[in-house]
Amino acid sequence: MLFGNKNRNKKVFLDYASSTPIDPGVLHKMNSYLESNFANPRALYSQAEEAKEEMKIAKRDIAKIFSCKSDEIYFTSSGTESNNLAILGVFYAYQNKNFKPHFITTEIEHSSVLETFREVEKRGGEVTYLKVSEKGDFSIEDLKNSIKEHTVLISISYANNEIGIINPIKEVSKIIREWRNKKETNLPYFHCDACQAVLYLSLDVSKNGLDIMTIDGLKMYGPRNGGILYIKNGLEIKPIIYGGGHQRGLRSGTEDVASILGLAYALEIAETMKEEESERLLKIRDYAIDKILEKFEGSSLNGSRDNRLPNNINICFPGKDAEFLVVSLDIFGISVSYSSSCNTLKEDSSSFVIKSLDKADCSQSSLRVTLGRDTDIEDIDYFLEKLEKIIN
Amino acid sequence: MLFGNKNRNKKVFLDYASSTPIDPGVLHKMNSYLESNFANPRALYSQAEEAKEEMKIAKRDIAKIFSCKSDEIYFTSSGTESNNLAILGVFYAYQNKNFKPHFITTEIEHSSVLETFREVEKRGGEVTYLKVSEKGDFSIEDLKNSIKEHTVLISISYANNEIGIINPIKEVSKIIREWRNKKETNLPYFHCDACQAVLYLSLDVSKNGLDIMTIDGLKMYGPRNGGILYIKNGLEIKPIIYGGGHQRGLRSGTEDVASILGLAYALEIAETMKEEESERLLKIRDYAIDKILEKFEGSSLNGSRDNRLPNNINICFPGKDAEFLVVSLDIFGISVSYSSSCNTLKEDSSSFVIKSLDKADCSQSSLRVTLGRDTDIEDIDYFLEKLEKIIN
Repeated sequence: MLFGNKNRNKKVFLDYASSTPIDPGVLHKMNSYLESNFANPRALYSQAEEAKEEMKIAKRDIAKIFSCKSDEIYFTSSGTESNNLAILGVFYAYQNKNFKPHFITTEIEHSSVLETFREVEKRGGEVTYLKVSEKGDFSIEDLKNSIKEHTVLISISYANNEIGIINPIKEVSKIIREWRNKKETNLPYFHCDACQAVLYLSLDVSKNGLDIMTIDGLKMYGPRNGGILYIKNGLEIKPIIYGGGHQRGLRSGTEDVASILGLAYALEIAETMKEEESERLLKIRDYAIDKILEKFEGSSLNGSRDNRLPNNINICFPGKDAEFLVVSLDIFGISVSYSSSCNTLKEDSSSFVIKSLDKADCSQSSLRVTLGRDTDIEDIDYFLEKLEKIIN
Repeated sequence: MLFGNKNRNKKVFLDYASSTPIDPGVLHKMNSYLESNFANPRALYSQAEEAKEEMKIAKRDIAKIFSCKSDEIYFTSSGTESNNLAILGVFYAYQNKNFKPHFITTEIEHSSVLETFREVEKRGGEVTYLKVSEKGDFSIEDLKNSIKEHTVLISISYANNEIGIINPIKEVSKIIREWRNKKETNLPYFHCDACQAVLYLSLDVSKNGLDIMTIDGLKMYGPRNGGILYIKNGLEIKPIIYGGGHQRGLRSGTEDVASILGLAYALEIAETMKEEESERLLKIRDYAIDKILEKFEGSSLNGSRDNRLPNNINICFPGKDAEFLVVSLDIFGISVSYSSSCNTLKEDSSSFVIKSLDKADCSQSSLRVTLGRDTDIEDIDYFLEKLEKIIN
């Protein structure tokens, strides 16, 4: 966007953790495919074979980025569905053994993880929710002490969707590995929701020691209706959607080849930009945090500053109503978020994440400001100027 | 396509029951939206409000076609997911009452219905599978006699995906209504998989007496990754995917607004063309059936001729290997199907539908030829010419 354009009817989008625009190259790739081939990839004629071949290439490209095998890549309709398949799928696999399957997660996961675990509890599973400190991190000791004989799955996000805190997933996988070795078992599995981390952190499942990983097209400038689930070969997991037995029986439903190509390409673009974009956003983020803390008396950063996604700012403005701030900023064309989009449908839409940080006063007074590919320093200055007008 | 173009490297697609191309107008509508708004509709700023408004209009347009209320429309990722939500959702709602919930379906439903029922059985539900005659229809008496005190759902497709047989859904809903009135209950519910019927038959849920109805974008020149589920208000049904509580808690996951607009527009186009296109295809279908039965000795039509979708031809060529026919026709650029695409992944990919017709010999010797908007008489002549070359 040109500076001249930006001044009047300026639009400053600062809610990239909620949604990213689709990359024009990704959209073009999807459209080119849609215009050239519409065959159901499970049919037996050449167009279908070509569709299958395209999917194969996409899987291979994704597998390369994840450092895994092609047949460990599964496609779903969203990050939400991927998280459901990971958690319920493992629960169903262990539901009828002669023990009560136990799960570990943290109390500040995304609602698609937490609500799925509530369902697991209703169906007879046991779930431990790790508490987090004011900084937003859980205690590794707590995690260690929570693992028990019948723990089948540990689900911990790569980075939190509200406060951008990065979890020590390598440490988690080390602890899991040690437990498995000691007990001579392949349990518990480690599932990681990487939806928020995808643009900034390494997706190497091998180095990170992951067994299952969730990725969402919507959060990475990709298709709006496409999720990925990496599932290590050999795991016991069952489907949550039944039918024609597509995707090795784990996810029935005709594959949307265009969307799959879009996911692969969006990941490829993200991978190429990762380092440079992370550095660029880190500078803008720190500039914004410094300015906000300086300008607004009493304001405080929610969650650790160091151990945080380069695009995430989450600030408490004590005594201010966050919903009012969001709506007021919107008048100036600025889009930010209060809690997370996936919480706004709940009766109590205040942030349970912020509450968990022992900052209960902040749960209705915090703004999430998340940066993306279009964000520059001018956007931040504009945001600060308008926020000052509203608050002070 | 011009005639001149069609002669060399001719492509004749005759597998529209498996997949339809996306309508260029639908694709354009989706792209226009994607390029103008990428906000998560659950956020609180203007772009999100605009997204919500677009969804509202789409729902209203769909509801008009279905003769139902806007808030009875739900969006899923596919026909498969819609069928899963209909069946498992009702099962979950009645799973823990003090009776064994009972379901009725037919033995020739789509795999996304039948496999979901297998899962219901594994989880403690009871399912009656109605037998069908050689014509492909079940006995209304059988259905009547199958309903019992604890029958919670009857799931019968509008038209079969392999043989195109149209089921008497108004008769079914009348029987259900009578039972409900007599027993003073609102059970059983009536779910209808209308994926194959969407382009040709009335979708008026009120006149048809439906409580739940499945529609799939892929089968109606719409988005590849979008399904609709009509669910009458007041029904007891639970979600199968958990999370942020989108769509009144019944289907979590950020809505793909572009796909929703595409579904509404595809339906609108289909509705406008329905009558004329049905008449046009009926003529082509009957021309093809007559010619085939005349040219190929011993060949027979699978399923009733009269009571059949205008785009469906399914013929048994005794002693011929259908897979070989499909592959041979493909050499001439002709795409047809053997069994259904959703069966090709199974160990035994022969047609269980044809087997159910008491034509076991035909289950590996039948071709499904399904017509669509691009099909004309020349396509049929070309198909017949090549088939003759292959078979005779």
